[in-house]
Amino acid sequence: MIRTSLTRAIEFPAGHRYERTDWTESENEARFGRCYRPPGHGHNYRVEVTVCGEPNPETGMIVDLGELDGILQREVVEPMDHAFLNELPEFAGGLIPTTENLSHVIWNRLEHRLPGNIVLVTVRVREDRNLWAECTKS
Amino acid sequence: MIRTSLTRAIEFPAGHRYERTDWTESENEARFGRCYRPPGHGHNYRVEVTVCGEPNPETGMIVDLGELDGILQREVVEPMDHAFLNELPEFAGGLIPTTENLSHVIWNRLEHRLPGNIVLVTVRVREDRNLWAECTKS
Amino acid sequence: MIRTSLTRAIEFPAGHRYERTDWTESENEARFGRCYRPPGHGHNYRVEVTVCGEPNPETGMIVDLGELDGILQREVVEPMDHAFLNELPEFAGGLIPTTENLSHVIWNRLEHRLPGNIVLVTVRVREDRNLWAECTKS
Amino acid sequence: MIRTSLTRAIEFPAGHRYERTDWTESENEARFGRCYRPPGHGHNYRVEVTVCGEPNPETGMIVDLGELDGILQREVVEPMDHAFLNELPEFAGGLIPTTENLSHVIWNRLEHRLPGNIVLVTVRVREDRNLWAECTKS
Amino acid sequence: MIRTSLTRAIEFPAGHRYERTDWTESENEARFGRCYRPPGHGHNYRVEVTVCGEPNPETGMIVDLGELDGILQREVVEPMDHAFLNELPEFAGGLIPTTENLSHVIWNRLEHRLPGNIVLVTVRVREDRNLWAECTKS
Amino acid sequence: MIRTSLTRAIEFPAGHRYERTDWTESENEARFGRCYRPPGHGHNYRVEVTVCGEPNPETGMIVDLGELDGILQREVVEPMDHAFLNELPEFAGGLIPTTENLSHVIWNRLEHRLPGNIVLVTVRVREDRNLWAECTKS
Repeated sequence: MIRTSLTRAIEFPAGHRYERTDWTESENEARFGRCYRPPGHGHNYRVEVTVCGEPNPETGMIVDLGELDGILQREVVEPMDHAFLNELPEFAGGLIPTTENLSHVIWNRLEHRLPGNIVLVTVRVREDRNLWAECTKS
Repeated sequence: MIRTSLTRAIEFPAGHRYERTDWTESENEARFGRCYRPPGHGHNYRVEVTVCGEPNPETGMIVDLGELDGILQREVVEPMDHAFLNELPEFAGGLIPTTENLSHVIWNRLEHRLPGNIVLVTVRVREDRNLWAECTKS
Repeated sequence: MIRTSLTRAIEFPAGHRYERTDWTESENEARFGRCYRPPGHGHNYRVEVTVCGEPNPETGMIVDLGELDGILQREVVEPMDHAFLNELPEFAGGLIPTTENLSHVIWNRLEHRLPGNIVLVTVRVREDRNLWAECTKS
Repeated sequence: MIRTSLTRAIEFPAGHRYERTDWTESENEARFGRCYRPPGHGHNYRVEVTVCGEPNPETGMIVDLGELDGILQREVVEPMDHAFLNELPEFAGGLIPTTENLSHVIWNRLEHRLPGNIVLVTVRVREDRNLWAECTKS
Repeated sequence: MIRTSLTRAIEFPAGHRYERTDWTESENEARFGRCYRPPGHGHNYRVEVTVCGEPNPETGMIVDLGELDGILQREVVEPMDHAFLNELPEFAGGLIPTTENLSHVIWNRLEHRLPGNIVLVTVRVREDRNLWAECTKS
Repeated sequence: MIRTSLTRAIEFPAGHRYERTDWTESENEARFGRCYRPPGHGHNYRVEVTVCGEPNPETGMIVDLGELDGILQREVVEPMDHAFLNELPEFAGGLIPTTENLSHVIWNRLEHRLPGNIVLVTVRVREDRNLWAECTKS
């Protein structure tokens, strides 16, 4: 059996900061280093979303790309582009906006909003050229 | 057990167009948007072919790269480079040359033409920086 | 004196073909090789437009990026994205849509449509990773 | 005469925000759009510094790369990496940290701190893949 | 179940040469081509190391990045950067330093030196833009 | 007046080492650091050659790309690909194969071998993503 997947990448800049308010300043500094520096910094995030399914025999497509782009725009780009990630609902309670956690947040935003005939396979979040996190269904 | 794979990437420009002749013009436009525009457009395709196998203890190689390159040249680059994909035998009957379908076409061209000691694992076709399809044996 | 410039890049796929109708088939083949193959192929073009001017002391910007983006969208992306370049008005008379000529065409489309306080410095057109042409005012 | 130049690239993430405190909220929004969103966002900046000079006949180098790297580290990376650019001394008075202005700030930090035998030619600051500013001596 | 992984990339230049001293010169040439040319050549290697584990609920991290970077620095960058790979202990006995073998060597150097809560998933070694090898636990 | 240029990029791996035999070991180490490590290392070099001229009105090309590619192949790729740069005639007398010197060597190899209607404008040699040298006629 051959599995077919399609991956769509989106990019946006955002800000973030690593800080636990229940830790002392020196604990935060020791653990988070420069990521603790107030008031924060940011990245050009790149998110690669992989879905799998059967190509529609009429169109040759796993998913209507316009529909997928609309979902990614509404669930990810619109709320996160030029935003400070710590202020998103998922992070506002103190969850640290690491690359790992951001990939989970995006997974959860997308998983149940995709068209019924496709399955979310991977959400990869690249913070920069040399660091990325991935959520995969195992 | 550690599995070892090797990936070779090739690139070539090609043309294509999305059109179903059994659909009206407005159906084609609604579904395929700018990809329906006659007489077509094109992309710099990038194809990444992954094979796995045991490194030969004498050469340290899974596959003779010259042999693999020859196969990729003959089965993929020679017929597809600067070609109009809709005119390939696989697409000439009306199959839409989407990224998904192109990855299947390349999979089928390669699967039984590789040396016996290696197995085709993945064919990834990148249409541009932000969209790619992948066939994988599951 | 320090000169400040700003460069904006845009990308779009398009199709093209090299053919002189006043040449024989074998002359076309000899001179244009695979670029002569009917009905054409295409590329993911990348266009980098450089303008220079004085940063506005209030905004720190040479040019309003929204305004520049609007001009690039209207003059370049809208007419060229998913188009067959040979059918653009500038190429319809038989001018070959080479990278060199495309950079001139884009230069001419932009030169007199930029805001008055900035000057067009360079139009660079990348056909692929390894080939690009540039128009510069000398 | 052949001129020889050498370019060194450095990368770091930083935060910034565009806001003029002497403007109303709606003026800021109209002019700066999402870049005005509090408390700010950020980018993975890439700075490319070009110097020219005569290659030393003994070493074949225009400049000792370790020395140049030390200067870039001290003047640019150390103060800007994971920082909020608006808080740098040059921007703290309200100068907007645009790509254009950041390239000037880096030019000024470097110009008189380079070894005597080389000349600063260009400072290019890339905010993302599709936007960059450049200062050049004209 | 969602599996979370983190990937860290490192880059370094190194030299290598393919030669079996138990083969004749013409056997070496026939099999290894230009990779046999004395005294050797080299590449800018890029190594991408993927680990998986549970994000720590306090820090949102699978692994302390400073700790992981220290391990990669000590086990990979320090001994391999600007080195001639054939002289590493693993290759000194005549094992050919192919991309496949190098990925195994790095896998073995890392596997038992990672913190206890994370698991090594993949070691990918890129020799250039168009060729890479990968070790994965299967 | 608009100047048109065309740039062609080529890539090849090569080896090199920095050493002055008239210096002591510790002088070499102090000045060249890891680049002095015997027996050498290497890089994936990328060379970008820019020429300018008038586009031929019949073909729309500054230069026949096949002819330019042949020259680059013969003068640069053939002798340098998988070679140890210190053994090239230009470096064999002890000239250090730095990026700066390599750009001069390539300039000299190309300058008088290009077709008569085009002019060599720039030779850029990239040693890696973050370091490159350029020769330009001034």
